[in-house]
Amino acid sequence: MSISPAESALYGALFSDPDIAEAFSDAATIRAMLDVERALARVQARLGIIPEDAAERIAFVAGSYEPDIAGVAAGTEKSGVPIIPLVEQLRAAVGGEAAAYVHWGATSQDIVDTGLVLRLRGVAGLLAGKIEQLSGLLGKLADEHRGTVMAARTRSQQALPTSFGLKAAGWLSPLIDHATRLDEVRPRLLAVQFGGAVGTLAALGARGVEVMEGMGEELGLAVPAGPWHVRRDNLAEFAGWLSIVTGSLGKMGQDVILLAQSEIAEVRPGAGGGSSTMPQKSNPVACEVMVTAAGLNASLISAMHQATIQEHERGGPGWQLEWLTLPQMAVATGAALNHAIAVIEMLEVDAARMRANLDESNGLILAEAATFALAEHMPRPQAQALVKEACSEVPQSGRTLMEILAGKTDAPVDWDTVADPANYLGSANELIDRILSRF
Amino acid sequence: MSISPAESALYGALFSDPDIAEAFSDAATIRAMLDVERALARVQARLGIIPEDAAERIAFVAGSYEPDIAGVAAGTEKSGVPIIPLVEQLRAAVGGEAAAYVHWGATSQDIVDTGLVLRLRGVAGLLAGKIEQLSGLLGKLADEHRGTVMAARTRSQQALPTSFGLKAAGWLSPLIDHATRLDEVRPRLLAVQFGGAVGTLAALGARGVEVMEGMGEELGLAVPAGPWHVRRDNLAEFAGWLSIVTGSLGKMGQDVILLAQSEIAEVRPGAGGGSSTMPQKSNPVACEVMVTAAGLNASLISAMHQATIQEHERGGPGWQLEWLTLPQMAVATGAALNHAIAVIEMLEVDAARMRANLDESNGLILAEAATFALAEHMPRPQAQALVKEACSEVPQSGRTLMEILAGKTDAPVDWDTVADPANYLGSANELIDRILSRF
Amino acid sequence: MSISPAESALYGALFSDPDIAEAFSDAATIRAMLDVERALARVQARLGIIPEDAAERIAFVAGSYEPDIAGVAAGTEKSGVPIIPLVEQLRAAVGGEAAAYVHWGATSQDIVDTGLVLRLRGVAGLLAGKIEQLSGLLGKLADEHRGTVMAARTRSQQALPTSFGLKAAGWLSPLIDHATRLDEVRPRLLAVQFGGAVGTLAALGARGVEVMEGMGEELGLAVPAGPWHVRRDNLAEFAGWLSIVTGSLGKMGQDVILLAQSEIAEVRPGAGGGSSTMPQKSNPVACEVMVTAAGLNASLISAMHQATIQEHERGGPGWQLEWLTLPQMAVATGAALNHAIAVIEMLEVDAARMRANLDESNGLILAEAATFALAEHMPRPQAQALVKEACSEVPQSGRTLMEILAGKTDAPVDWDTVADPANYLGSANELIDRILSRF
Amino acid sequence: MSISPAESALYGALFSDPDIAEAFSDAATIRAMLDVERALARVQARLGIIPEDAAERIAFVAGSYEPDIAGVAAGTEKSGVPIIPLVEQLRAAVGGEAAAYVHWGATSQDIVDTGLVLRLRGVAGLLAGKIEQLSGLLGKLADEHRGTVMAARTRSQQALPTSFGLKAAGWLSPLIDHATRLDEVRPRLLAVQFGGAVGTLAALGARGVEVMEGMGEELGLAVPAGPWHVRRDNLAEFAGWLSIVTGSLGKMGQDVILLAQSEIAEVRPGAGGGSSTMPQKSNPVACEVMVTAAGLNASLISAMHQATIQEHERGGPGWQLEWLTLPQMAVATGAALNHAIAVIEMLEVDAARMRANLDESNGLILAEAATFALAEHMPRPQAQALVKEACSEVPQSGRTLMEILAGKTDAPVDWDTVADPANYLGSANELIDRILSRF
Repeated sequence: MSISPAESALYGALFSDPDIAEAFSDAATIRAMLDVERALARVQARLGIIPEDAAERIAFVAGSYEPDIAGVAAGTEKSGVPIIPLVEQLRAAVGGEAAAYVHWGATSQDIVDTGLVLRLRGVAGLLAGKIEQLSGLLGKLADEHRGTVMAARTRSQQALPTSFGLKAAGWLSPLIDHATRLDEVRPRLLAVQFGGAVGTLAALGARGVEVMEGMGEELGLAVPAGPWHVRRDNLAEFAGWLSIVTGSLGKMGQDVILLAQSEIAEVRPGAGGGSSTMPQKSNPVACEVMVTAAGLNASLISAMHQATIQEHERGGPGWQLEWLTLPQMAVATGAALNHAIAVIEMLEVDAARMRANLDESNGLILAEAATFALAEHMPRPQAQALVKEACSEVPQSGRTLMEILAGKTDAPVDWDTVADPANYLGSANELIDRILSRF
Repeated sequence: MSISPAESALYGALFSDPDIAEAFSDAATIRAMLDVERALARVQARLGIIPEDAAERIAFVAGSYEPDIAGVAAGTEKSGVPIIPLVEQLRAAVGGEAAAYVHWGATSQDIVDTGLVLRLRGVAGLLAGKIEQLSGLLGKLADEHRGTVMAARTRSQQALPTSFGLKAAGWLSPLIDHATRLDEVRPRLLAVQFGGAVGTLAALGARGVEVMEGMGEELGLAVPAGPWHVRRDNLAEFAGWLSIVTGSLGKMGQDVILLAQSEIAEVRPGAGGGSSTMPQKSNPVACEVMVTAAGLNASLISAMHQATIQEHERGGPGWQLEWLTLPQMAVATGAALNHAIAVIEMLEVDAARMRANLDESNGLILAEAATFALAEHMPRPQAQALVKEACSEVPQSGRTLMEILAGKTDAPVDWDTVADPANYLGSANELIDRILSRF
Repeated sequence: MSISPAESALYGALFSDPDIAEAFSDAATIRAMLDVERALARVQARLGIIPEDAAERIAFVAGSYEPDIAGVAAGTEKSGVPIIPLVEQLRAAVGGEAAAYVHWGATSQDIVDTGLVLRLRGVAGLLAGKIEQLSGLLGKLADEHRGTVMAARTRSQQALPTSFGLKAAGWLSPLIDHATRLDEVRPRLLAVQFGGAVGTLAALGARGVEVMEGMGEELGLAVPAGPWHVRRDNLAEFAGWLSIVTGSLGKMGQDVILLAQSEIAEVRPGAGGGSSTMPQKSNPVACEVMVTAAGLNASLISAMHQATIQEHERGGPGWQLEWLTLPQMAVATGAALNHAIAVIEMLEVDAARMRANLDESNGLILAEAATFALAEHMPRPQAQALVKEACSEVPQSGRTLMEILAGKTDAPVDWDTVADPANYLGSANELIDRILSRF
Repeated sequence: MSISPAESALYGALFSDPDIAEAFSDAATIRAMLDVERALARVQARLGIIPEDAAERIAFVAGSYEPDIAGVAAGTEKSGVPIIPLVEQLRAAVGGEAAAYVHWGATSQDIVDTGLVLRLRGVAGLLAGKIEQLSGLLGKLADEHRGTVMAARTRSQQALPTSFGLKAAGWLSPLIDHATRLDEVRPRLLAVQFGGAVGTLAALGARGVEVMEGMGEELGLAVPAGPWHVRRDNLAEFAGWLSIVTGSLGKMGQDVILLAQSEIAEVRPGAGGGSSTMPQKSNPVACEVMVTAAGLNASLISAMHQATIQEHERGGPGWQLEWLTLPQMAVATGAALNHAIAVIEMLEVDAARMRANLDESNGLILAEAATFALAEHMPRPQAQALVKEACSEVPQSGRTLMEILAGKTDAPVDWDTVADPANYLGSANELIDRILSRF
């Protein structure tokens, strides 16, 4: 264990995603900030605000500059943000007259926040790719298991038949909307932050907005109406998206765990772990992490919403709270998606066991179907009464509901057909089609 | 106090919004469920699934039916949902053969969830209206106070000048996006839930999807790809929207509280309360509630995300958790918006005090402006050094920075112009324009 | 539904506890505040701070005074606390010279907070009583089911045998500590709040502390070192206690839900609800509410901890946040305890099914026991290898592990004894004894 | 930034505490688990359960064993816990017949949880030491500033005078209780976890409890009634304690931030950071981190309470959720305490400014004192009316309240004495004494 297991050599493989974690590494953080400084210089040179050769020098140096981390860290401890010591070092490396034009008219938060957004762009892309991959796997699973009949369970008890295909389509369905949501969130999230010391861009005279627009163009980011230094709804919204994604994965993981219980055993998550002392066990480790990530994000989302209250033109605690929570949330989401992909890829579905579990009720699970079948031949209340009476006899009799019903009435019902749960799936296939067609 | 102060006779006016609270009253809850049953009967008659006259009878009775609440409550205690006893009572009231066609092919959750959505439609409309009203007020405030110069404060300390107009525009800016977000959320949220007992619509044979579509049309709701009984991302997303809205209002409320502190006194929230023993006080009660609502929602959002993990084809605890939290969140949001409207409507802005507070630093707050002014007449490093030296003399001297600088250099700077913070607002007006133009 | 289902006529029976809810009613809130005013007058008269006859008059009137609620509410809306208008009304009712001595030297928060504590004393007592009742039931259950052998399940899979008695003892065990914890929390929680306007008790000259001590004696509350108006750790601590209690109940409810699943069916929560369309179902409604209460409190506890940050000598938003959350938490805890008591009282335990589920593994669950038995007759590694080999043959063979082992070795093991899970319960009974002895 | 800024080279100094972080390092985690395995072997040898020489060999090897981390990590990924691969490696290192006696009768969770508790013992000790150090500093501050008069502020506005000494005593007061609370929590938290595979200790026959007791003695840990593998109230309780501590520190940090605002400037947190562009600023970085830690813990505490619902005899997601949150909470608490110590050690208190801010109200802040003074010479209602009238004249007049009152009445009041806020501090010193005497 480490402070965060996601960063532990022991636990990292369970709880982290290396690519997403990399976006939050010190190296990537610094690189992104230097990229923003570089873009700033270029844009300002293009607009004639700083000398062309100063910008070239800054862009050249910043392009490959590797700061003295210990020095930056010392400055961060003092000032609360790494950009102040970083800019000092960068100025020294740039040297000459160009040094004065480094960070021209910008404030720490401009660089830190825009740098964050550059990294979140990559993170969003990675997550979108994983969602698409998982969606593809689930779509395939849904399609393949249209005919795999199983018990649907409501409030923990067998209710009526369904198909495993519809269950998989139900796991897929929210993911399709999550992709749409991310597309909606992106232009609000991936927007340049540029406001100068207090959001007026005063140090750039009348040219601040031009620079903000130029920055957007240079970095491929959206240009917002104004700086978002103290409106953090974009980050809270993205955090909410992360947590909704893990919520959907947590539901999937929980379902698989429940289906894999020893006594149910309808699926077997191939990625499961063993037990040293109990050879018959296969722990659903990957599914557990999916549920865990949902719980973690459902807790951390609270911090991200608390953090939207940032005072005046810069709020310290709210800003820091984002730093302490958003990276964890993104990494947990990536890890949960990875586990979900592995679980679905390796999932062993035991159709025979599903059918056997359904049959355990001796047809009680098809009481509704029997009522409907009978109601074609007698008044519905009479049909209901007959089925109710038969149902009460099932447990003691050892016979199935349909056998008992066949003995109680000569209505010309094809009891074999009624007894087959595959004939009582309603619109399952149509619903699968509808969901798949949206993907 | 009551379990929830929002429902207390004593505290309700502070923490509740009567119109939104009404949407969550027992009466409205029952009315919405009966409306769904009525729509169901009509649609099924139109599709030839149930007899036309049965549907007419059901629609007639359900249209004005007032159930025996105590009886419904007793059934709710037993079954966990009110719909089972409610349908029993409704069937008795409908009577005759039509009674059997009440709730045809539906399950409790279809009625409860679709009924919820019908009420949330009204709630969303009310909130959108309040956001628009508040946005209008803030837009006006921003426009009026373009020239009201004040200190911007970063990390709790005076930083540079800004205008109160830009501050108000900053409060407005997220609200504009919140309206957009609600438009995006609406079609996902305001969607019919119809899946039958387990989401297959089996009781309707092959006609379930037709009924679902008909329900959407009849009730003016979107028709989703499939039932959302166990994917609750739509509700979690809406809850996130509510909490982001209160987060923005909490920031606004916090800013006003800070500006209204005795020693700062730049604004006076007219809606403030008095103190029995301290006549000089005016408590910013309304602003406090805005912050409180943000804190409450930032906490409850965690429950709504936890609740997305609902097992199999119906999850009890997750569903119940939504009932216990979403109404509170909506009511808190409505109350916070009401308070925000009142605060902005009655806000007294003391421009003179703002200017006086700015002047307290004897020009130190304009050190950056002075540097820029000097840098037009000498190398920038030299300008910086001069300003730094002058800054260090300000505290002991009792003179202003510009007076000291004027004595240190004969550079032809117009020090009066530099000394006026109104001349160091950068792009403030342009940013206000950009924000107002999006509204 | 109502804003809080706990206050809804429809849902109240599920989510509320009438006695605890009563403690948070408007009437009880006002009554408690009047009791504090009465105690204040009596104490001050006893100390000679106010005239004896004034105190008598105040105590007499406050003893039965019923304020005009609408008037108090209107004042609450304005000032943010009900005590200001309440004191005005009380003064008018007291009349004469005595009127001036009402609320002498106190501030709103003294009355509101001490009034809250008076009510929490009752709430704590009610909860302690319920915990004791539940503990008694669980102790009896644990004792009765020492011999009821069942599968223990780790990470959702059958692991080794245990007894249902030990399981019940495991549910009991934390409750015993919760009772201890409450005893520790009580003196910190049930302490008079008395600080005057800002915590100095200035309005009482040098006699403030005497009055504070007198108030403690008069009301039977602890006397703290100083006023706790802006240190709220006592309330946060109590909220944490509530949430830990519901956490333990949630674990119990979740276990029962899992054991009651159709395919496992080892217990049947008698308090379960039915389903209109699926007669074979018995929803574990009460258990669900136990889990739900845990989820609600786990979310609201976050607000109570946020609320500990209260500014200077009185913080508005933090104080309000307590009002909006603590009552809900207490009521949810009471309701969860009620449900737990009902569930345990009516729990049907199916020992035969427990044994049948154990036997499903054909002895694999006893692989460890077999190894130990064999290891008495051969080196342990050899025993392990033999068992492992036998285990792998079980699934295809249709025979039990012990049958296979008996065929593989002539070691003089009494295989019937090994095959009986009741012989592999280790220290189960000793652990039950240890837990029961602490109760 | 890193996934957790506490582990970042850049941000670690702000958000981490090296000693506490070390307790959660991979190395310390493994070391603690090996210590538990070593203790287990020793105890079992002492009880004659395993051979003496095997135990000696195990204890010798485990005492300095350094596992192949990559190998352990690979096994962790598969099985979800590091102990399975670690035990395999340790067995190989021990070799011979002794190898079989490694981890005898234990399960993964016994080693992981007891190992955690060993490390939490150190963490609790470190935190207790910091609390004591901070308490000492605050006690000294309170004592020194008994005579430093300042404005008390309620709901963000100046209310009455208080002393900075009482304010500091108010910060100290909860810390004294936190130390007491930790003493109460310790025996419940620092308890051996030993239950074997499912909590029956079956693998040890009848001797499980003896071993559990021996483990407690060997490791210096409490011996609980039974294993706590699925009752996690001890960890949730400790997490609650951590969060209450940071809540108290957050209140202190927030107060200092508010007092250090430019316009108030009554204190200056010496540990504050600078600003690159605004030389007049001193950001209260350390105080911000104190508030941030409170917000983080107030959010994470929700996860720890969610995690108390652990299924049956081992719950995966709940257990994992603890791993992901508790270390962060402990580290944040340590960091917040460090910052608090630094802030208090270096705090500059500006008594003159405090007095000047008090005087800003021209005596309005002493209206209550004036009323009391007058009431000694006239009926109280008359005194109140006179003061109210005088108060209304203060703002326009430019004169102080006492000057105006002196002109309105010839009552023989010593107005100079009344005008001195130091004379209206009530029981401030007595309350400081009471708080200091509890320390």
